[in-house]
Amino acid sequence: MSQPVAFPGLAEFLAATTGRNMTKAAYVGVAIGVLMIALLTVDPAYAAARHWIEGVLWGCLAFFAFEWLVRIRTAALKGDARGYMLSGRGLVDAACALAAPIAMLCGVDDRTAWLLAALWIVKVFPGVPGLRRLRRVLVLESRPLLSVLVLFLMVLFLASVAVYFVERDAQPALFGSLPSAMWWAVVTLTTTGYGDAVPITPFGRLFAAVVMICGLGVFGLWTGILATAFAAETRRDNFLRTWESVTKVPFFANLGPAAIADVTHLLRTIDLPPRIVIIRKGQRGDCMYFIAAGEVEVDLPGKKVRLGEGAFFGEMALLGNYLRSANITTTRLSKLLVLDLADFRLLMARHPDLAQTIDAEAKRRTLENQ
Amino acid sequence: MSQPVAFPGLAEFLAATTGRNMTKAAYVGVAIGVLMIALLTVDPAYAAARHWIEGVLWGCLAFFAFEWLVRIRTAALKGDARGYMLSGRGLVDAACALAAPIAMLCGVDDRTAWLLAALWIVKVFPGVPGLRRLRRVLVLESRPLLSVLVLFLMVLFLASVAVYFVERDAQPALFGSLPSAMWWAVVTLTTTGYGDAVPITPFGRLFAAVVMICGLGVFGLWTGILATAFAAETRRDNFLRTWESVTKVPFFANLGPAAIADVTHLLRTIDLPPRIVIIRKGQRGDCMYFIAAGEVEVDLPGKKVRLGEGAFFGEMALLGNYLRSANITTTRLSKLLVLDLADFRLLMARHPDLAQTIDAEAKRRTLENQ
Amino acid sequence: MSQPVAFPGLAEFLAATTGRNMTKAAYVGVAIGVLMIALLTVDPAYAAARHWIEGVLWGCLAFFAFEWLVRIRTAALKGDARGYMLSGRGLVDAACALAAPIAMLCGVDDRTAWLLAALWIVKVFPGVPGLRRLRRVLVLESRPLLSVLVLFLMVLFLASVAVYFVERDAQPALFGSLPSAMWWAVVTLTTTGYGDAVPITPFGRLFAAVVMICGLGVFGLWTGILATAFAAETRRDNFLRTWESVTKVPFFANLGPAAIADVTHLLRTIDLPPRIVIIRKGQRGDCMYFIAAGEVEVDLPGKKVRLGEGAFFGEMALLGNYLRSANITTTRLSKLLVLDLADFRLLMARHPDLAQTIDAEAKRRTLENQ
Amino acid sequence: MSQPVAFPGLAEFLAATTGRNMTKAAYVGVAIGVLMIALLTVDPAYAAARHWIEGVLWGCLAFFAFEWLVRIRTAALKGDARGYMLSGRGLVDAACALAAPIAMLCGVDDRTAWLLAALWIVKVFPGVPGLRRLRRVLVLESRPLLSVLVLFLMVLFLASVAVYFVERDAQPALFGSLPSAMWWAVVTLTTTGYGDAVPITPFGRLFAAVVMICGLGVFGLWTGILATAFAAETRRDNFLRTWESVTKVPFFANLGPAAIADVTHLLRTIDLPPRIVIIRKGQRGDCMYFIAAGEVEVDLPGKKVRLGEGAFFGEMALLGNYLRSANITTTRLSKLLVLDLADFRLLMARHPDLAQTIDAEAKRRTLENQ
Repeated sequence: MSQPVAFPGLAEFLAATTGRNMTKAAYVGVAIGVLMIALLTVDPAYAAARHWIEGVLWGCLAFFAFEWLVRIRTAALKGDARGYMLSGRGLVDAACALAAPIAMLCGVDDRTAWLLAALWIVKVFPGVPGLRRLRRVLVLESRPLLSVLVLFLMVLFLASVAVYFVERDAQPALFGSLPSAMWWAVVTLTTTGYGDAVPITPFGRLFAAVVMICGLGVFGLWTGILATAFAAETRRDNFLRTWESVTKVPFFANLGPAAIADVTHLLRTIDLPPRIVIIRKGQRGDCMYFIAAGEVEVDLPGKKVRLGEGAFFGEMALLGNYLRSANITTTRLSKLLVLDLADFRLLMARHPDLAQTIDAEAKRRTLENQ
Repeated sequence: MSQPVAFPGLAEFLAATTGRNMTKAAYVGVAIGVLMIALLTVDPAYAAARHWIEGVLWGCLAFFAFEWLVRIRTAALKGDARGYMLSGRGLVDAACALAAPIAMLCGVDDRTAWLLAALWIVKVFPGVPGLRRLRRVLVLESRPLLSVLVLFLMVLFLASVAVYFVERDAQPALFGSLPSAMWWAVVTLTTTGYGDAVPITPFGRLFAAVVMICGLGVFGLWTGILATAFAAETRRDNFLRTWESVTKVPFFANLGPAAIADVTHLLRTIDLPPRIVIIRKGQRGDCMYFIAAGEVEVDLPGKKVRLGEGAFFGEMALLGNYLRSANITTTRLSKLLVLDLADFRLLMARHPDLAQTIDAEAKRRTLENQ
Repeated sequence: MSQPVAFPGLAEFLAATTGRNMTKAAYVGVAIGVLMIALLTVDPAYAAARHWIEGVLWGCLAFFAFEWLVRIRTAALKGDARGYMLSGRGLVDAACALAAPIAMLCGVDDRTAWLLAALWIVKVFPGVPGLRRLRRVLVLESRPLLSVLVLFLMVLFLASVAVYFVERDAQPALFGSLPSAMWWAVVTLTTTGYGDAVPITPFGRLFAAVVMICGLGVFGLWTGILATAFAAETRRDNFLRTWESVTKVPFFANLGPAAIADVTHLLRTIDLPPRIVIIRKGQRGDCMYFIAAGEVEVDLPGKKVRLGEGAFFGEMALLGNYLRSANITTTRLSKLLVLDLADFRLLMARHPDLAQTIDAEAKRRTLENQ
Repeated sequence: MSQPVAFPGLAEFLAATTGRNMTKAAYVGVAIGVLMIALLTVDPAYAAARHWIEGVLWGCLAFFAFEWLVRIRTAALKGDARGYMLSGRGLVDAACALAAPIAMLCGVDDRTAWLLAALWIVKVFPGVPGLRRLRRVLVLESRPLLSVLVLFLMVLFLASVAVYFVERDAQPALFGSLPSAMWWAVVTLTTTGYGDAVPITPFGRLFAAVVMICGLGVFGLWTGILATAFAAETRRDNFLRTWESVTKVPFFANLGPAAIADVTHLLRTIDLPPRIVIIRKGQRGDCMYFIAAGEVEVDLPGKKVRLGEGAFFGEMALLGNYLRSANITTTRLSKLLVLDLADFRLLMARHPDLAQTIDAEAKRRTLENQ
């Protein structure tokens, strides 16, 4: 594991390549590692291919240890090695690299020690798309979510005591102590319902029915809180992303800030990789596009026209001619602002000057292409 | 199966009949086919009526193969046979027509090969009402839904490892490998709870309780995302459909685009078949109607009046006289714009000129019918 | 059962008493009847008290038959007996009165025939509060709910075929036919998870995991649709109920219709029975009240003041003095408009003239009560 | 238990200490008590440490009895001992102090009597954060929630009768009476699905499938109602809390009430304990802060600046310079108003004068710190 340091050139090279590649390699490593851990626990697979499985696991571990050291070095070059090592990410990287070997050194059975490598999956966490929004939702609504959790635990405890009281004589093996009754209560309140412990006395069943209905209620509150918060966050997110783009489109340049805020609410941002067909000839269109970044190619009969940043297209579909008249394709990674038919009408109603600009451009294009 | 081509006249005839009839026939075919596949797998039914069941299945197959060929020919007449055959729909049609016979030719047991005919049900897919809206919701919210899915899988994996660790010695048959523990985890996280594998150690149960509560959380996020997106799509859809209709009603013709956008938010579109009683005499009314398309018949004492496109009716119920004074029936397929009492008041508040028009017309009608 | 007709005076008397009393008696009858039906099916109870149970059931039946005849007579006096008998309600009343005896006449075992009396519970249906709103939600959103149902059925069928295919050899007793596999699929897709049929092959479990996650998705869509529709209906309902009341309060009389619409959005209607303490002295207040109908009594030191329709109270709590200074009680059934602190501020911001009126009245009252 | 009264000095002292400390002690007492009750029911633990467990329980009981007496005395000093004793809280305190001993005096077995001490957990109830909001949601939406519950019970009863009818001969042990069938129905409708009673006849399974789908529907309605109500309450709550704070910030002092209502909708309140790093140097910023109460310390190079009530900071991150330029820490408990980037832009658009003030201050600070 100290080998990488012996080849500083390689480490340098890797530190120089973008963190993006490193991250991609780490994802592949995590996927392989997770598969190997699963195989490790399957007795026939372990008996048949023990050395292969452990070899691959050691390989993954070496890569993660190496990645950790490279990241420390990269941070050290920026003068903040300690900052990285004590950050959440640094600690996760350290745990991924060291947990399993340390456990082995402490004398834990190899097959058990490798289970600690399950931590590798936490490395994927920062790469989950939209995670920031989910976290904001959970943080902003932590108080009501917490109160629902406390309510849940209170109902759980009281239900356990009640059912323990009425069922302990009928089923001493299943409801003979409060912890057993709690196990039943949590299985029931979450509507999981394994069926390993089921009340059989009439009062026990009556309590159980109330507990189940309370379970639905807790569930409903939980969902209601999350749905509310998610709706607010989604609106905020979309607004922010779109505002950035709107200000870059010359078409909207003459609008005052109030109008821009208004327009921003109507648009939606999408990011498209190169060579994606945005509009297909002959399809029914229900939106127009503004190019916030990137470039598209319009495949007109006999010639190909390229439209760059700030241009718009697809407006004819909103002006009465509902069938798309040409294929339009991205030539490189592009960020487009989408204006749906419904919002187009609202926009035109509120900003007639924009409507005229679009109308004029549409007429010019129609003439030009005849 | 090559017979239809031998009767080009018939194919022509079928291509000439609307695709609608063909589609209806296909739905019936799917329903019969699905029933036959189910019967095929029930041993007593198969033993008793093997030949009937297989006969009907061959009949359905012949129909779908024939339908596929007709569609290819129809597309070929439009010069785009290849386009159809490679489109999603064309591929589904091909699979429906060819999957089962090809499997039989490859030597698969007849009864098993027919299971591939279950694909027929996919033909119903494009006909599901409101599907477009559902798809838009799923596409627009694919990123957060995906992050919830990734979170779900991460929780699944870590929960499996933890429960495998604490339960493998106590229940080697059920938790003896990570894949087995994962099966338990997915059954628990989705709150399905079969009860085939249940942790019995105290720590296993503690982990399980946490997993169940996480399951509720994942569920809540999922629902929250879908609810939010669905609300936005519903608003957008209604607005679009209603806008189309509003612009066709002369009553609203003098409004500027901003006012039309405003009015559109207050109205709701409904489509009614002929001979439907919209208003029943003596009932309490809480909405008025504008006719966007179609015609209605007012059953006044002694005479019948017909109202056509652009007319409105039912306004008296909103002007103080809450009981409907006549039966009103559609005479043909009609599209009506509904204005509820609450929205009527908002409309009157914001557009007093419209209020006067409605008031004047109501007075004129009252005088006329005295 | 023909007895009631033999005492027309009694029938007249009952027809004269309000339908409300009749309805209340019917609810009591339904409650008793339902309890008796449950007892009837419990063998020990039936053996011990057969005659009592059947006696009470006959009594309930006689009452419902009698109620039906009274309602027919009442309708006949209004000249529309046929209308009532063919209306939904009339048919339910007829079924409640006739189903069980007809079954007995047809030779059905008594104990089984009485099960038809379970229909009695349908009589409660029209009395469920808020039912109209629920029905509107279901009707307006019937299309998307239907598409989710169709999607659910398609997933159900395809999942059944897949699991039947992989599990039929491993568990012929549980997955030996498509209907059996469908039973498993519906139990799993709804996340009920009885555990009576559980896939055991690796592929079966993989399919099952996908089915469970789809189950969550269907659930989420379903909830999302209902939540969206419910939110819209609730807004509409509150608006309507509040509008009626606002227009009756002189305080708001000078507002134009646009301002009334605005005010209506800020208020909330509550109905209170007599002798309810609305405001308790010394409590922290966060809302004020307008009396739309009814009367309240203010318990000032040394005297009692009565406020009637159109008056307002509790405004001092919103003007800086947060502790309530007197008990206020309803003297009869009253309809109040509640203005919460948050909305009070919005109202004051938008309608400064109303703010002045409230302020002046508050000062006058303070002076008077010193 | 009458000891505390024997030391009036101590009671006085405790009554003088804030109720807060008393409440905290009570929470600790509840936690210990709940643990002991659980241990009491576990036979091995009880056998091993009976005296310890009972001793601690008696200790908790003594504390709660003492707390009750102190509270009565405190209330008596305020002249309202009877008011406290009959209030909800007073009754709970009395029950917590007296239920278990009274049961013992009545001759109930000690171990069973202690189960009544489970009531202690109800003491935690008023301390649950956000509970007021949850209660308001449940109270305001009690009518629709009740109608869903009634629908649920009606479906439950009809489903029970149907399944009892078709399954009673096939499974007399499980579906032999209506109450047994009802147990099955409630387990199924709530999607708990223990699997202890499962229909086996084809019709029974068909009914069961319908019941499960109805269960999802009930669930969806429930969640929809709660989500809708929760969203409304959250908006109202945030508005109220923020309004209080906004009016204290001089920056907003010149705005009229309508503008304050507008600004309030854009801000969010957070409460921070001392020594929390609000802004970390070098991080990407996406919001600015106004100090409604408390104080923060800006860690500029070479000097530390303190900002008090009414000041704002973090605005540079919103004016183009996205990286935070200094650490900012709270020095004491502070209430901040957060303005997110998205809302900052809306605010600037609607109130250009505020924009200028912020811009000017930002320039002044930049110059000063160069």
